[in-house]
Amino acid sequence: MGELSELFAPDRVAVVGATEREGSVGRAIMENLLASFEGDVVPVNPNYESVLGIPAVDGVGAAAADLAVVVVPPGIAVDVVREAGEAGIRNAVVITAGFSETGADGAARERDLIDVATEYGTSLVGPNSLGIMSTPVGLNATFGPENATAGRMSFMSQSGAFITAVLDWANDQGIGFKDVVSLGNEAVLDESDFVEAWGDDPDTDVIIGYLEGIDDGRTFIETAREVTRETPIVLVKSGRTDAGAQAASSHTGTIAGAEQAYEAGLEQAGVIRADSVQELFDAARVLESQPLPESDAVAIVTNAGGPGVMTTDAVGDSRLSLASFTDETLEAFSETLPPEGNVYNPVDVVGDADNERFRDAVDVVLGDDHVGSVVVLACPTAVLDYERLAADTARLQERHGKPVAACFMGGARVAPAEDVLSAAGIPNYFDPSRAVQGLDALSRFRDIAEREYDAPASFDVDRERARAILSSVVERDDARLGVEAMGLLEAYGIDVPDGEIVESPEDALDAAEQIEGDVVMKIVSPDILHKSDIGGVKVGVSDESVADAYEDLVSRARNYQPDARILGVQIQEMVDLDAGVETIVGVNRDPQFGPLLLFGLGGIFVETLEDTTFRVAPVSGSEAEAMTREIDAAPLLRGARGREPVDVDGVVETIQRLSQLVTDFPAILELDINPLVAAPEGVSAVDVRLTVDPDELGRASDGRAHGDRDDPRKATGEHH
Amino acid sequence: MGELSELFAPDRVAVVGATEREGSVGRAIMENLLASFEGDVVPVNPNYESVLGIPAVDGVGAAAADLAVVVVPPGIAVDVVREAGEAGIRNAVVITAGFSETGADGAARERDLIDVATEYGTSLVGPNSLGIMSTPVGLNATFGPENATAGRMSFMSQSGAFITAVLDWANDQGIGFKDVVSLGNEAVLDESDFVEAWGDDPDTDVIIGYLEGIDDGRTFIETAREVTRETPIVLVKSGRTDAGAQAASSHTGTIAGAEQAYEAGLEQAGVIRADSVQELFDAARVLESQPLPESDAVAIVTNAGGPGVMTTDAVGDSRLSLASFTDETLEAFSETLPPEGNVYNPVDVVGDADNERFRDAVDVVLGDDHVGSVVVLACPTAVLDYERLAADTARLQERHGKPVAACFMGGARVAPAEDVLSAAGIPNYFDPSRAVQGLDALSRFRDIAEREYDAPASFDVDRERARAILSSVVERDDARLGVEAMGLLEAYGIDVPDGEIVESPEDALDAAEQIEGDVVMKIVSPDILHKSDIGGVKVGVSDESVADAYEDLVSRARNYQPDARILGVQIQEMVDLDAGVETIVGVNRDPQFGPLLLFGLGGIFVETLEDTTFRVAPVSGSEAEAMTREIDAAPLLRGARGREPVDVDGVVETIQRLSQLVTDFPAILELDINPLVAAPEGVSAVDVRLTVDPDELGRASDGRAHGDRDDPRKATGEHH
Repeated sequence: MGELSELFAPDRVAVVGATEREGSVGRAIMENLLASFEGDVVPVNPNYESVLGIPAVDGVGAAAADLAVVVVPPGIAVDVVREAGEAGIRNAVVITAGFSETGADGAARERDLIDVATEYGTSLVGPNSLGIMSTPVGLNATFGPENATAGRMSFMSQSGAFITAVLDWANDQGIGFKDVVSLGNEAVLDESDFVEAWGDDPDTDVIIGYLEGIDDGRTFIETAREVTRETPIVLVKSGRTDAGAQAASSHTGTIAGAEQAYEAGLEQAGVIRADSVQELFDAARVLESQPLPESDAVAIVTNAGGPGVMTTDAVGDSRLSLASFTDETLEAFSETLPPEGNVYNPVDVVGDADNERFRDAVDVVLGDDHVGSVVVLACPTAVLDYERLAADTARLQERHGKPVAACFMGGARVAPAEDVLSAAGIPNYFDPSRAVQGLDALSRFRDIAEREYDAPASFDVDRERARAILSSVVERDDARLGVEAMGLLEAYGIDVPDGEIVESPEDALDAAEQIEGDVVMKIVSPDILHKSDIGGVKVGVSDESVADAYEDLVSRARNYQPDARILGVQIQEMVDLDAGVETIVGVNRDPQFGPLLLFGLGGIFVETLEDTTFRVAPVSGSEAEAMTREIDAAPLLRGARGREPVDVDGVVETIQRLSQLVTDFPAILELDINPLVAAPEGVSAVDVRLTVDPDELGRASDGRAHGDRDDPRKATGEHH
Repeated sequence: MGELSELFAPDRVAVVGATEREGSVGRAIMENLLASFEGDVVPVNPNYESVLGIPAVDGVGAAAADLAVVVVPPGIAVDVVREAGEAGIRNAVVITAGFSETGADGAARERDLIDVATEYGTSLVGPNSLGIMSTPVGLNATFGPENATAGRMSFMSQSGAFITAVLDWANDQGIGFKDVVSLGNEAVLDESDFVEAWGDDPDTDVIIGYLEGIDDGRTFIETAREVTRETPIVLVKSGRTDAGAQAASSHTGTIAGAEQAYEAGLEQAGVIRADSVQELFDAARVLESQPLPESDAVAIVTNAGGPGVMTTDAVGDSRLSLASFTDETLEAFSETLPPEGNVYNPVDVVGDADNERFRDAVDVVLGDDHVGSVVVLACPTAVLDYERLAADTARLQERHGKPVAACFMGGARVAPAEDVLSAAGIPNYFDPSRAVQGLDALSRFRDIAEREYDAPASFDVDRERARAILSSVVERDDARLGVEAMGLLEAYGIDVPDGEIVESPEDALDAAEQIEGDVVMKIVSPDILHKSDIGGVKVGVSDESVADAYEDLVSRARNYQPDARILGVQIQEMVDLDAGVETIVGVNRDPQFGPLLLFGLGGIFVETLEDTTFRVAPVSGSEAEAMTREIDAAPLLRGARGREPVDVDGVVETIQRLSQLVTDFPAILELDINPLVAAPEGVSAVDVRLTVDPDELGRASDGRAHGDRDDPRKATGEHH
């Protein structure tokens, strides 16, 4: 598992700050290590000859260890890590708290810790961590009350308390782990590092995690995409709601990114996101043990019609569908099932079904080529032996190699059957919807593993022209640009209506004469936000009225706001809004994920219906295309209700070109093209607004290759 | 509990068809009754002297019972019920299958059964039922393997197998019941009857059920509204999804009503609808044992920040909100909590909190006037005793009388604490989202119990004119009407644009001259559905062009479809679509719930965005008003983005007037007003389409008072 394999499988662990004091963290870690670790444990404490019977050394330099667990007070923790580094110890778990979570002094201490780790190349977990575990070598370097049992999930958490709670519960449920990491403050190693390490780990089949924030969204996306070709990642990212985000921020002190960015970023990363603890483990368990389905068609076999309907509803709620059986299956059932049964899906073997009839039906549907997965759904009856049904189900699952979910309903009587199923990796639920959700997770991961991530397209653009237009904010001392920046879109090949900004009635007429038909005229001023409200827009102006209209627009603006800076009047070709669909394409910058693209229904519907979708830029062609399919109004683009389809390819290209623009220029903080009118004959960016960061504009970052966005935090080694 | 109290608390039960044969249903029922029933059990079987040691009688007439449980073969079951009726036995549970679920003969047999029950006034459960239970008298008149334990929920199910599964599980979970009913075919007693009976039952605190269909939606709504003033009803109504509805239909053979009708009808009935078994029992448990919150503000007290954030997310997902504490609370916390704690909500008492600190914090928030309910959220630590925290929580909950949900995370170590909490009626969950969903159910029920159900308004309308227009379908031999029926809307006081239908160019001109400004002209023909497609609509026609336009429209229609019946050309006032919002108001008839009203965003958005909401008619003013608030585009009606608000009162009144129209005339099978243009100065029904049932029109039903809709099935005593 790459660089971090030593962290989880050390030969010799030094516990710096080991002690015998009752109730202390240093003692708890010693006890946990001594309880099961296969390697050597060396207590480091100059005040002790030995700790819990193990001879102690005075300093970490004398421990000859390959992992240092640090539980000394915060004032000397940095020195200990340096000393360990000098002694060639490349792995450290800093349990000690009192770093960036505690204010300015702690934050300075954490920067020192990072510097030391960087200097010595230390793989450092924490500080402010519960510790780490790895079951293959019996490593429990935590001060928690529970050890993990062995399994094939690896688990990371930004909450140590959550690890404690989960382990206690998981041990009860028979859920085991390979590695467990309490991430702590993530001064050095963060979620992306562990995702990468576990992706390379042959003993980790599923990666699960509890996260409140992702520090570097782009790195996480790229790492997770690689890993999820083979290894599923299931995460709870909390702070999903406004209330939760506020709570997360006060809990960890991090600046929360937008939920839309997390939603888009995690989806693009190939992460299966769980909204609750139950969802997290339901998905993880089935991903750990069951094969992936070749199709989304589910067969349900039951001895009870009512629960069969409930299960069918659960299929209807999911991305799965009910299988239509082959003729062979229907023939087989018509011979073996009683007349009051149902040979179609959900298969009803009837309440008087014995184990043979039930087993044979499961066998038949598992053998049906039209069936991708099976739910075995049983209610207790006098003639059905649950344990035998469990054994039959397990054997048939293995023989056919298709995923099976079990819903043996009942209480105490289910327990022995549940053990049989569990041993075969088949989770059992009382609630059919949870069984189906498990199969749904398998289907989702199958699609994720099969994804092809295209590189973003690189269009031939006029970067210098764009830079010049953006730079105008420096001269103007105003970070906002409006229609005067339409040239920015032109420079990146985005279609805009004919037009220009003029500063006199005469120029207005000249401009209007260049344009076929009547024109639209708008006052151009950074100080007037709602032009329509002051009569600052005139639609359908004929050439002969252009000069008067110019004077009128300017005088209205002056009357409305005498000190407004007036940049001129925009003369623009008329765009027929009725023939097309008004859409919006925009971007804003998320603190964790960087530029976040938005596409949605435009006009008055943007704010009221919020029919929008998001992606972290840069996006590939297929991602841009997916955005145009995801909004509710997508059928309107493709010609619903007998309308002519609009130029969807043009919309897709516009999204990609905007993606390239904002990736090339990190100085663009936000930008909206609203409306982007999508008509059958093409798209047209009618209006634009953007905000530019003049300081960022001065940096060299836009000189780099497209897609190679720089993260200044990484350059300094600083993660928080 | 009204008429059905005797059914659940008989003194003497006759088991007709009792036998000693191993594995028989007749023996299973005898055994179940003998195991715990407080009253007398009388086996009825001419072939036995005694059954299981109890002297048998030859016929049910000799049993002197007040409840007959019938397990004889279907061929003689009807006779047994008649004999029981003659002997004065007013309660019967027909276990016997082989009735309407098995085809034509069975259906005839079921009609006979209904006739007999009607004749003798028998309260009859079944046929094809698992039986009934009532724990206060130890009655288990079922053939299932499990008996219910005592509790205060009463449970009905259209699936007997589901009852068996639930009881096995519930006994394990410590969930008890007052009554349990397997509804079977519902030949006589149905879900509404039991809802009504349990509403009157002082020993039933919560009504729960599994239903695949509701036979008479209107009766159910009216019954449930009355009951839910005091007693919560939580139901799984399966067949929610298309796949599920199909499965339910093939399972029970019933014609499924539309999911929209169930969704609207159950909501109007005050039912809390659960989508899964877990949701059903999570809601029912908390409703059984916890008080209702006075406000939706939730306080979270935890010793673990991360799970606190997850819990806050769950609050964000619910209808609840995070409480803002009073100054007194904040002061108290600033004195008692350590500096690294959080005195704001979610309250973090920190991982080193002992029982005293945790308890005191729970006490403080329960005493805060700004707090409606509390989540006590704990992770295992060395210094916290879960059992003591559970006892403290239970005592504080009782003292403050506010609802409390518990989320003591962990596995085996939680069990003793869970028992303490459970004894106090506080459910405990590992997953915080389930704890919060419980509080959410309490809040939902509080609002349901406080609802005021206004009577539908009764507008002064011209019923005879409406009847005459509807009757035109009889003469025309076509059940569909279009704009030629605009007078129907006028008769019911719904605003329509000025206009009329003319049959000559001359009349067209006359009509146009009566209307100010240009007009819209449309061909009127029942055979031409998409008028626009053939150029059958002309907008903005000036008076001088009207005659030519008339000729043109008619000749286009003739060319397009030579045999089309042309009723004339509609001349209509122009309605400015841009100033208003296009909406749709419509109705169709559901087999279970009757007329189902629809309101939504109209125009091209109806089909693509499906931004619609539904209600079962008749609706009150407040229900109609709620419809205008429920659609996503609601802000557009109320003046979003600086637009002038439209005449929402006019929309609300139009919905109510349409409700009255379709209630008065059951002959209207479906009707759409699309668009109903809602503008600031008023609403205008621009177009209408409807389908009429000429046979229904002949009946007298529309002569009755508004809201007193007749159900022909009830009149014959027929339920299926």
